[in-house]
Amino acid sequence: MSTPNAPLEYARTHRDEFLEELKELVRIPSVSTQAERQQDMRSAAKWLAAKLTSIGLDNAAILETKGLPVVYADWLKAGTKAPTLLVYGHYDVQPEDPVDLWATPPFEPTRVGDNLYARGASDMKGQILAHVFALESMLRTAGLPINVKYLLEGEEEIGSPNLDEFIAKNKKRLACDLCLNPDLSIIAPDVPAITYGLRGLAYFEIRLKGAKSDLHSGQFGGAVANPALVLAKLLAGMMDDQGRITLPGFYDDVRPLKPEERASLAKLPQPETWWQEQTGVRALAGEAGYTSTERATARPTLDVNGLLSGFTGEGSKTVLPAKAMAKVSMRLVPDQTPQAVERSLRAYLKANVPATVEWEVQEHAGAKPAIVGLDSPAVRAAARALESVWGKPPLYARQGGTVPVVTQIQEVLGTDSLLMGFGLPDDNLHAPNEKLHLPTFFRAIEAFIHFTYEWAAS
Amino acid sequence: MSTPNAPLEYARTHRDEFLEELKELVRIPSVSTQAERQQDMRSAAKWLAAKLTSIGLDNAAILETKGLPVVYADWLKAGTKAPTLLVYGHYDVQPEDPVDLWATPPFEPTRVGDNLYARGASDMKGQILAHVFALESMLRTAGLPINVKYLLEGEEEIGSPNLDEFIAKNKKRLACDLCLNPDLSIIAPDVPAITYGLRGLAYFEIRLKGAKSDLHSGQFGGAVANPALVLAKLLAGMMDDQGRITLPGFYDDVRPLKPEERASLAKLPQPETWWQEQTGVRALAGEAGYTSTERATARPTLDVNGLLSGFTGEGSKTVLPAKAMAKVSMRLVPDQTPQAVERSLRAYLKANVPATVEWEVQEHAGAKPAIVGLDSPAVRAAARALESVWGKPPLYARQGGTVPVVTQIQEVLGTDSLLMGFGLPDDNLHAPNEKLHLPTFFRAIEAFIHFTYEWAAS
Repeated sequence: MSTPNAPLEYARTHRDEFLEELKELVRIPSVSTQAERQQDMRSAAKWLAAKLTSIGLDNAAILETKGLPVVYADWLKAGTKAPTLLVYGHYDVQPEDPVDLWATPPFEPTRVGDNLYARGASDMKGQILAHVFALESMLRTAGLPINVKYLLEGEEEIGSPNLDEFIAKNKKRLACDLCLNPDLSIIAPDVPAITYGLRGLAYFEIRLKGAKSDLHSGQFGGAVANPALVLAKLLAGMMDDQGRITLPGFYDDVRPLKPEERASLAKLPQPETWWQEQTGVRALAGEAGYTSTERATARPTLDVNGLLSGFTGEGSKTVLPAKAMAKVSMRLVPDQTPQAVERSLRAYLKANVPATVEWEVQEHAGAKPAIVGLDSPAVRAAARALESVWGKPPLYARQGGTVPVVTQIQEVLGTDSLLMGFGLPDDNLHAPNEKLHLPTFFRAIEAFIHFTYEWAAS
Repeated sequence: MSTPNAPLEYARTHRDEFLEELKELVRIPSVSTQAERQQDMRSAAKWLAAKLTSIGLDNAAILETKGLPVVYADWLKAGTKAPTLLVYGHYDVQPEDPVDLWATPPFEPTRVGDNLYARGASDMKGQILAHVFALESMLRTAGLPINVKYLLEGEEEIGSPNLDEFIAKNKKRLACDLCLNPDLSIIAPDVPAITYGLRGLAYFEIRLKGAKSDLHSGQFGGAVANPALVLAKLLAGMMDDQGRITLPGFYDDVRPLKPEERASLAKLPQPETWWQEQTGVRALAGEAGYTSTERATARPTLDVNGLLSGFTGEGSKTVLPAKAMAKVSMRLVPDQTPQAVERSLRAYLKANVPATVEWEVQEHAGAKPAIVGLDSPAVRAAARALESVWGKPPLYARQGGTVPVVTQIQEVLGTDSLLMGFGLPDDNLHAPNEKLHLPTFFRAIEAFIHFTYEWAAS
């Protein structure tokens, strides 16, 4: 149990096999939000349980929840004195729409140069399998110096509605010294990073209703308020010209960024041009007084995720819509909570929706933001592992995305999460043409091998 | 050729047959905007040509345009000294979506009490056939004291893109002394009316594009402008808190309402409560300083007809959309033109679209507003016809909808249009559960018989 050389050698000589297995998994369209794909969700869960069993894990099981099942497996033969790692992942993926913007079929993995294109390749089937293949490489050669448990859920992309309860009911089964969460990205292929902060999420659907049915805009236009225009005015009023959110009390719980933290974030290789290149926008925009890195990772924001009203097909239909809908979500930073933000939104709507329309708000998802400790043995082990693979120390970043399970595991199991994943910012997560950068994928496998040895020795 | 008694008697004894024939026609889903229904458009045209031939008209023909064909037929045996009436109609209908809000199948006419429910029953297959059945009643009995021509187009619901050219190319064929246009409604079953003003239309699609593809709202939210929110701000800025449209120069060409005209409009049985009941809104809204009748018929307005951006399915998707689209249309009054309004819209967008997004505007439809003379022999004949059927003189109204063919026929043929149609404001035009009020439909047939005699004698 001295050096990771044998597992690393195994990993390097099995890249082709790893890639074929990854393709098998991403071919399964496990879209959790679509009722018609529940069978595919089961297929993905079965595939993972079978794979974990085949590399030598025990107790592989598909455990039911009120929604989609969790895949569990463990390897506890390192003994009670060795530390136990819980690896979290999710095997569900985002819907593939709009399909016509994909250059290749979303569920037929297609290699183009260094990249493998497929829905879920990066978010996060590739991240899960990078760890599984690391484990395989150790179990098939030198063995494993720690205990490992897998918790792979099927509802992350729909806000993990049943995970809280699952973790609470399985506290003993999931007991661990650390949770490893690879549902993350690094900054660039040559810039390893560890993430210490995550934003939370509050996601709502706002629905307005005006007339009793759609009206002819010639007959009634001018005499009644247009719900789509009322909605536009409400949304427009939610953010001022300085990019600040106007919902009452929205910033009350926001922990201000300290000067030293702003200095650390400024070390990240993400100048304004980087944000512009990544997104392809003509000009950046955001909250006045902050850098784009701060705006996208360490400051709260509000986005319209969807808009629908009236006639949206080809051509013209002179309808005065009866209804208008917006999906609106806020990214939260410590110490905001989804509950407080919902109160802000409702207070804003109560004060601003005119008497001409009825309104309702539905919460679709909520997750608290998180900050984790930089000085833990796990983070130090991870930093050494990344340095071994990349040949340089990692940077420390916050990420703008939401990993609600980090909060849940902290609250229920009392365990910190190590946020170490290997997606890339241009992987087109949640968008057409999602891809996985294969050289980074193979480095990730080696990083997970190194981390296991470093953490066992720490 | 003395009294209309025989035709009226025929019309009264053939109501069942008329109703069955109307059902046949509305069963044909002639939706002009949908490419997959082009064959149904042909079927509707053929049905009409066959019907017109069967009642004794000559030269029935389906005449091609660059788009959907025009149905033509004539009866010119009254001789060159008798006046010639051109009857305009359209055999295309609006799309039936959203289908799930229909209580009965949209293309299976269903009688419930006094109403026949079906797409196109009122707009305007019922209006066309009311005149056809009037003609049948005269031709089968006393004969016809005037010459009649039918011009039935198939593209009214998509803005009549080829009608202008068709009329210009067929000037001689369509030459007439008056155009009768029944594509209109009266105010209530017991309130006959003649319409002397129509609003025009300018219909646009505004498309914004931000990032090169949809982004993950966690990764990039806060660092880039959200096109859906930018669109909301642009739309919100198009109308002020007084219900006035802010596009630069929008009101420049608006002919003010004279006090005597406002007094005449005030006689219409359309109090504010009527508008509220018709639409079912919680509260009315519109341009400050005007009644709802004025706002909806004699003042210009702006409506959002459609909104689309991002994820609009069930549940949540944390997408930061790359694109946002709005369909926006303005109803115009004399002397506004679609061209001037398009210049206003483009000037507004040029001044207000931020540098963060690209924008484009597409014009989908345009039609000038119209005012027609109240003192013409045709209008006086129509007034007498309506009084004969309803037992009281008609009111004179403006209507908020658009009948672009009125302008085209004035410009190309030099002929005024008599606007006399018998829909009702609660017919759910362009909306689910469109219906035709059958007692009014049967009165319409008699009104057209009376009008023929009155106009021939004038």
